[in-house]
Amino acid sequence: MVASPVETLLRRVFRDAQESPIRAMLALANEPGMISLAGGHPDPTLIPRDWIAEAAVDVLTRIEGPALQYGATDGLPELRESVCTLLRARRIDARPGDVLITTGSQQGISLLMSVLLEADDAVAMAPYNYPAAMQAVRFAAGRIFLLRDNLDGLAELAQASAAALKAVYVVPSFANPTGHCMSLEARLRLLQQAARLGICVIEDDPYGELWFDRPPPDSLYALNQARGIGAVVAYLTSFSKILVPGFRLGALVAPAPLRRAAMLAKQATDVHTGLLEQHVLDAMLRSPRLMHHVRGLRAAYGAKARAMTQVLRNVAADLLAFEDPAGGMFVWARRLGDCDEQIDWFEFGRTHRVLALPGSAFSPFGKCTAYLRLSFANPQIDAVREGIERLAAGLAARATA
Amino acid sequence: MVASPVETLLRRVFRDAQESPIRAMLALANEPGMISLAGGHPDPTLIPRDWIAEAAVDVLTRIEGPALQYGATDGLPELRESVCTLLRARRIDARPGDVLITTGSQQGISLLMSVLLEADDAVAMAPYNYPAAMQAVRFAAGRIFLLRDNLDGLAELAQASAAALKAVYVVPSFANPTGHCMSLEARLRLLQQAARLGICVIEDDPYGELWFDRPPPDSLYALNQARGIGAVVAYLTSFSKILVPGFRLGALVAPAPLRRAAMLAKQATDVHTGLLEQHVLDAMLRSPRLMHHVRGLRAAYGAKARAMTQVLRNVAADLLAFEDPAGGMFVWARRLGDCDEQIDWFEFGRTHRVLALPGSAFSPFGKCTAYLRLSFANPQIDAVREGIERLAAGLAARATA
Repeated sequence: MVASPVETLLRRVFRDAQESPIRAMLALANEPGMISLAGGHPDPTLIPRDWIAEAAVDVLTRIEGPALQYGATDGLPELRESVCTLLRARRIDARPGDVLITTGSQQGISLLMSVLLEADDAVAMAPYNYPAAMQAVRFAAGRIFLLRDNLDGLAELAQASAAALKAVYVVPSFANPTGHCMSLEARLRLLQQAARLGICVIEDDPYGELWFDRPPPDSLYALNQARGIGAVVAYLTSFSKILVPGFRLGALVAPAPLRRAAMLAKQATDVHTGLLEQHVLDAMLRSPRLMHHVRGLRAAYGAKARAMTQVLRNVAADLLAFEDPAGGMFVWARRLGDCDEQIDWFEFGRTHRVLALPGSAFSPFGKCTAYLRLSFANPQIDAVREGIERLAAGLAARATA
Repeated sequence: MVASPVETLLRRVFRDAQESPIRAMLALANEPGMISLAGGHPDPTLIPRDWIAEAAVDVLTRIEGPALQYGATDGLPELRESVCTLLRARRIDARPGDVLITTGSQQGISLLMSVLLEADDAVAMAPYNYPAAMQAVRFAAGRIFLLRDNLDGLAELAQASAAALKAVYVVPSFANPTGHCMSLEARLRLLQQAARLGICVIEDDPYGELWFDRPPPDSLYALNQARGIGAVVAYLTSFSKILVPGFRLGALVAPAPLRRAAMLAKQATDVHTGLLEQHVLDAMLRSPRLMHHVRGLRAAYGAKARAMTQVLRNVAADLLAFEDPAGGMFVWARRLGDCDEQIDWFEFGRTHRVLALPGSAFSPFGKCTAYLRLSFANPQIDAVREGIERLAAGLAARATA
């Protein structure tokens, strides 16, 4: 293929970039009768539409000129205060001056990669990751190094390459796609290794509130603080999973020089995040409804997770192996036996009317694997059950074909 | 100064980055009795607060789940349609599929730099520019080449350096800070040069609607289209100056490969722009009030511009030279005579209770110059007059000191 004149102007990484396979799959999700276990979207019935509308109307009746004028890049001062209150409940000690409001936690990832990585600097991460975090590394001209499955091996990675290892990116609680929750010991080990190596820990925590039976261990940020480990930790959180995805609101907390750099990068990126949505989020974070709402989410997602794993055990015990997730939105299942590695999951979805995402979508090298990410978050509970039945039937049909 | 361990992790450009001198000046702007001609903020009384609140309440009463769920990176389909209608009035022929909704036009600048520039690639621009556009080039590891005052010299720049010249960034209508409006001939010349060189024209058009007596010549994008010049043009526009800055909404229109790359970069940057604000903007763009509102802005800013230039002629004819702006928000004034180049404008502002920004704030190399940017946009008309009187008195006092 001869590149058009426009394409020749693009950076190589953008000439070669593919749209996420997840997006293609999600287009299929809108077909009638399709059950999608593919998306990572929250359950739409758990987005508190009425509360959001009430909060927004209330904000709009008392909004003044300055709320509509350009604002500070840091974010709304009152929102940074209410974020600190939320963080204190997570045992993180932060002041409003430590917080940067971001356009979703995705922006936090992107800003940190942008301020940390010179060309070819590396970021370590788990073998399977949220695709847009991997893209943020690539678009910042960085390289991805893979930790071992248990998130160990940081020191070896730092030694093994001439490239500068600048950071480790990790979702310690209920990771995407594996649902994995790091133990306290694993968290402390990672922090100590990072402190010794002098690299930055980028802790992404969109799912930590969504635990089912018991909360996860403290965040890396909180542990580093409480135990004086001395690692450089940047903590990212999101309001997309617990309140409303479409508002695109997140927060970054980091040591002063790192936060300042991220703030300068944000000035050149979007000046600041939309103020109307910041005001509405602030009102919601200050409401006594918040904790009740989050408890409701835990119960609802926990019930859906149990529904999924129960049906998996009933109908797919010889087809798929998995661990029960303790929170979050995902079951990470491994196909058993002499499985055909070459399933086209798009075609499989069209045939069997159920969508799941292959592990390759979460591998930085698109490595084909026997893994599947099954999300119980978005569909209603009956569809979760029916989806697993269709998946098992489809896999069984292939196995006997 | 010994760098802290955190600072040593940062990219050099972020270790060295300074906050914009504009920000320091704007902190002073909030002191009581201060008149600020320094900011580029719209007049708060011209932000249609009531209309925005009505539109938002209306949106909120009919908003459904999907409006609060994750959305498409491209932006809301109906908003991209209403943007195309607006663009048609600007004689730009675009379809919704050509449009990317951005988190302010600042994001459009940043995305384009990110997808075009490998390290050390260059962007040509005017000798004085909007500082955050220059930061976006630097943070994308690019270099800035300067055109001549009349925006000529592109071909010489492309030849003179080993660095690859990838783009020219230009605000053709009522530029920040110079208020300059390119003639039709200059626009056509720039397009033809860019087409010949095969570089991208990044046209930033936040001010084009704010003309006083007659509209500016057609945009570069429209001219390139209508006359088949064959340049690669990316057009950016903003809703911050004509409707509401705090919502952070803009749009990018570009040839398919470039728009697609910007969309992929946006996926990794913030996934999409906030949906509530996109819905409200869509409602406002579809309202018959829009054209009436924009006509009101033209009249109001035109009156303020005339007030400023009239007082300048009355009290500062021997101190400052300038051309009358034909639109936008700025007067670009050059100090006359044997002027002291070393005025500390921060101190000057504290003493004389009037803030103006020196040309150095808009020079990529912080070059000290005899220029001042005087904005008539934000203060009320009496404060504009009083501000110029204070400025002239302060300058006169220095001249005779």
